[in-house]
Amino acid sequence: MSERETPSADGLVIGILGGTGDQGRGLARRFALAGQPVIIGSRICERAEAAALQIGHGVRGLANRDTAREAGLVIAAVPWEGHAELLSGLADELAGKIVVDCVNPLGFDQRGAYALPVAEGSAAQQAAALLPGSRVVAAFHHVSAVLLLDPEVDAIDLDVLVLGDDRETTDLVQALAARIPGVRGIYAGRLRNCGQIEALTANLVSINRRYKAHAGLRITDI
Amino acid sequence: MSERETPSADGLVIGILGGTGDQGRGLARRFALAGQPVIIGSRICERAEAAALQIGHGVRGLANRDTAREAGLVIAAVPWEGHAELLSGLADELAGKIVVDCVNPLGFDQRGAYALPVAEGSAAQQAAALLPGSRVVAAFHHVSAVLLLDPEVDAIDLDVLVLGDDRETTDLVQALAARIPGVRGIYAGRLRNCGQIEALTANLVSINRRYKAHAGLRITDI
Repeated sequence: MSERETPSADGLVIGILGGTGDQGRGLARRFALAGQPVIIGSRICERAEAAALQIGHGVRGLANRDTAREAGLVIAAVPWEGHAELLSGLADELAGKIVVDCVNPLGFDQRGAYALPVAEGSAAQQAAALLPGSRVVAAFHHVSAVLLLDPEVDAIDLDVLVLGDDRETTDLVQALAARIPGVRGIYAGRLRNCGQIEALTANLVSINRRYKAHAGLRITDI
Repeated sequence: MSERETPSADGLVIGILGGTGDQGRGLARRFALAGQPVIIGSRICERAEAAALQIGHGVRGLANRDTAREAGLVIAAVPWEGHAELLSGLADELAGKIVVDCVNPLGFDQRGAYALPVAEGSAAQQAAALLPGSRVVAAFHHVSAVLLLDPEVDAIDLDVLVLGDDRETTDLVQALAARIPGVRGIYAGRLRNCGQIEALTANLVSINRRYKAHAGLRITDI
């Protein structure tokens, strides 16, 4: 189909940049539990090693650059503030790889969360602009880090919306999402429609506050 | 709670501006079936009357201006192109009333649907700016007109996301949404977070194309 080979999710080494945050550790834990080799990346290698040790299940910790180099698929789970700088500095290591962006550019004030304007339209589109040699997909925006990290939670009631412009790559990331028990990976459009998916996280914050929940989404009729 | 009285949904006359379109007729049908008095509005009164007759269930048809005057709660279901002009021309009639905006500012090209930029942030925020005397709420963005109009469909598997800055009004619109069998009305944040809810309709269009579905949303854990 494509000139490039799309790796299978089986045995694919998953690197998580900014992997010592709640979201990164949570995803690392779930993918490791699903039998996937996982590397957590951090600016400081020792911090990544400590987080990996705490998670267990064979997760390794490395510096972000080594994580990008060793992984076959790299998840960017960094704070929005450091997103552009980190990715542009790793463009060479990430060339030819799948990069999954799960960053939500949000601000917070006394009235709650709100979407920040992004010149490129979304964090994922910014990643695509900074990483012309990578295949950028967006996914995992709405998964609750609390649920990912909770050892009492066996399955997560959530559809992971996967966006991207390359069918093989979105198919692969959908399959990867489905390795988390309870989760479906659902194709939800091209990258140009990613801004609202990232921004929707602000609405989930509002819902969580109102209903005291860890809200997720399900798509009906599919 | 408020200085103004919030009408109960019981017996509340619902007016639907642009009510002869698919979305307007579909909502009119479902609210009439739920026992609500409903008026369909159109630029041309005769067109509204014809659509009302076709729907039956006691639905009436009037010109948009008379619809705005007679209804207690007005749903704006007009095309985005005519949104600002129609609402600004009815500001007097709509003063003191609840206005529910369900307009999705979308463009379409050969790659599908995409969100149009809106200077005010969203159609609902534009409505709020044009109607300073009204209480503007946003809701019903994602409900499928096909399902609303299908006589074989008894219940719709959907959470209607309701956004607004006034608790009493969002509560009322949530209760109104729940009169459609199968539907829950879920508070999903302030109007400032409405742009992504409108834009999300572009993603549902993508999902519908990929999966041959009439996709809706459910919020999990509530």
